[in-house]
Amino acid sequence: MSPAFREIDNCVTAPKGFRAGGIASGIKSDPNIKDLAILASDVPCVTAGTFTTSSTRAAPVLVCQERLKSGRAQAVIVNSGNANCATGDQGLMNAYQMTKIAATLLHIEPELVLCSSTGIIGRQLPMEKIEAGAPRIALSYDQGNTFSETIMTTDTRPKRIALEFEIEGKAVRLGGVTKGVGMICPNMATMLCYLTTDAAIEDEWQQSELRAAVTDSFNMVAVDGDMSTNDTCLLFANGLAGNTPLNAQHMGAETFRAALRHVTQYLAREMARDGEGATKLMTVHVRGGRDKHDAAKAARGITLSPIWKCALAGEDPNWGRIVAALGASGCELQQQSYDIFIGDVQVMQQGTAANYDQASAKAVMTEKEVVITIDLHIGNGEATAWGCDFTHGYIDENTLYTR
Amino acid sequence: MSPAFREIDNCVTAPKGFRAGGIASGIKSDPNIKDLAILASDVPCVTAGTFTTSSTRAAPVLVCQERLKSGRAQAVIVNSGNANCATGDQGLMNAYQMTKIAATLLHIEPELVLCSSTGIIGRQLPMEKIEAGAPRIALSYDQGNTFSETIMTTDTRPKRIALEFEIEGKAVRLGGVTKGVGMICPNMATMLCYLTTDAAIEDEWQQSELRAAVTDSFNMVAVDGDMSTNDTCLLFANGLAGNTPLNAQHMGAETFRAALRHVTQYLAREMARDGEGATKLMTVHVRGGRDKHDAAKAARGITLSPIWKCALAGEDPNWGRIVAALGASGCELQQQSYDIFIGDVQVMQQGTAANYDQASAKAVMTEKEVVITIDLHIGNGEATAWGCDFTHGYIDENTLYTR
Repeated sequence: MSPAFREIDNCVTAPKGFRAGGIASGIKSDPNIKDLAILASDVPCVTAGTFTTSSTRAAPVLVCQERLKSGRAQAVIVNSGNANCATGDQGLMNAYQMTKIAATLLHIEPELVLCSSTGIIGRQLPMEKIEAGAPRIALSYDQGNTFSETIMTTDTRPKRIALEFEIEGKAVRLGGVTKGVGMICPNMATMLCYLTTDAAIEDEWQQSELRAAVTDSFNMVAVDGDMSTNDTCLLFANGLAGNTPLNAQHMGAETFRAALRHVTQYLAREMARDGEGATKLMTVHVRGGRDKHDAAKAARGITLSPIWKCALAGEDPNWGRIVAALGASGCELQQQSYDIFIGDVQVMQQGTAANYDQASAKAVMTEKEVVITIDLHIGNGEATAWGCDFTHGYIDENTLYTR
Repeated sequence: MSPAFREIDNCVTAPKGFRAGGIASGIKSDPNIKDLAILASDVPCVTAGTFTTSSTRAAPVLVCQERLKSGRAQAVIVNSGNANCATGDQGLMNAYQMTKIAATLLHIEPELVLCSSTGIIGRQLPMEKIEAGAPRIALSYDQGNTFSETIMTTDTRPKRIALEFEIEGKAVRLGGVTKGVGMICPNMATMLCYLTTDAAIEDEWQQSELRAAVTDSFNMVAVDGDMSTNDTCLLFANGLAGNTPLNAQHMGAETFRAALRHVTQYLAREMARDGEGATKLMTVHVRGGRDKHDAAKAARGITLSPIWKCALAGEDPNWGRIVAALGASGCELQQQSYDIFIGDVQVMQQGTAANYDQASAKAVMTEKEVVITIDLHIGNGEATAWGCDFTHGYIDENTLYTR
């Protein structure tokens, strides 16, 4: 991390003027598990979003996309336990109703409220539980962690971070939370992610920076290759830090960009590490690609390969599977001139087996984090992707989900 | 099956003038498991092939592609236990040497011999074992089944079929074998597949018919979404049935096409049924798609979804995962107007939950074969794809493969 950033507490409520809270409303079958949360700013925010590209988008995604045409929002209400997807007109009405419930509580216009849902697909939201539960949410300026816990589904732990840094000599904060450890696929979008900042930012620059950061973070994570119907990533900027609004020419643009990348890549890596059933984090660096896009294709291809993910689980340095995944990825490749490293052990040199110590390669595979490096020796394209291993735990998590 | 076809024995040696044999040469660690086989015609054949589109193609694939520029071949030598992939110049020389060994035994030109390898990637072939073993292969006109057993890797059983039918009043035979139950992904190519016929066929028509049949069979199978480096499908036609050569205008063209489709789709389905760790065959029919290509995209998307494959293993009719996979597939879809059936139970109607009996849906999921039908209500495109469930067995098969 750049010395210019300081890690601080309270994730999405670390920036000035953001409050959050969450409660157990009974949407989930266990009445003790929190499942309904609100995150709100004291003032309207410049707000950017990226969403799933699925053609079976859930109702709350449609609501966010509609409302963000204005580029302004002030709050989001989120439930876990039910995805409000494949729920037709009723589902869409329920999503709008959720925003209205939150707006009434917050004394703001419903048009400034967004919503998200995550959980089982194909069931209508229990609106009476949301109506009854929402007024019990006590919002406060230090409950970002509660918010991060309330949005979890099969996650084993919350994923959250906040940074403090300076722009124009003023303290600026950026916080983030994410959830999602299954139905995760790169090159599409992310799962639920909420980012808050008290920086002032111009609309267009904020949207383009968010999109670029998501491309290099959440779009580079794979747990299983399944894209979700509910993927949403929102960045709220309320301007309470008092800086002049950031744009591409601003002196502080580079600092904010670096902070945003740090936060999104940290959260992306934590999603992969907590992948359903995962015991290991895999990081794949590709360099020497034709261009960045091609390097990304190669890196993502390897994180997506079930057969290599199984080798990782078995701590088996069977790099032939990396070769197969690389070949299938569609990246440009010269069969006589690419190198593969597992950790610091070079297992392949110029397209054939390197002369390496099998015991060293096995030793690297026993680590909790395994880094694969590939040099394609074609151009200057570089990319990094994150994934995890594939275990009985994934199968178990997903064979009995709705029971 | 059309009443015009009769199923017969001996798979690839059922057509007139084809001999085969296989032995244990010691390439595999268990000296009792067969791993080296030859399939040969008495006379040169018009020969068509389709191959992996991977950019890390194995040496034997490169040899087949080079040799099939002539459209003629007479034999193929195949080993299991070693893929001869990522083996550089030495691997390529070894592949050519394999064809030379077989050519010498068969007293034919090496240019008429093809080769295939399947197994672990990244190790050089033990050529001394192939040199010593090949002369022990006793070729005969009824050893097609031995051939089908010798090419297996993680397959639990051989996959083979032969049909007899009439063209111009003459008996014509078409036989086929395939192997491969892991590293299987649609829209690419197939694993190893050998097809033989004694029909006389014109070159170009044979290649185009093979490509079309593979598109609707092997390219519609998914076990895990991993494309292999060694995928190969060959069709040898030696003309010994005595018919006038088949082409698009031939009276027998439709019969041969139907037979070829029956054989390739039968073998494709058997690959899915025997998928690593599989306990269930999944067949996905999509109708009402914008066109055939779009319907195929949707069908394949569902067979590829790890999360739905786990639901299938758990016999859980959690059709929300079909919705997610369908949305991610990239097919054209109208959210308010598509239907989903699990077996004969309609679980979704016009984009939302149908009013169905949960017990009936669960009962369908307990069957050994589960058919999913999707009607997109957009156009007339139809397609069928095959896959399997995702179990601990797949993980076990792939965590310790090279040990």
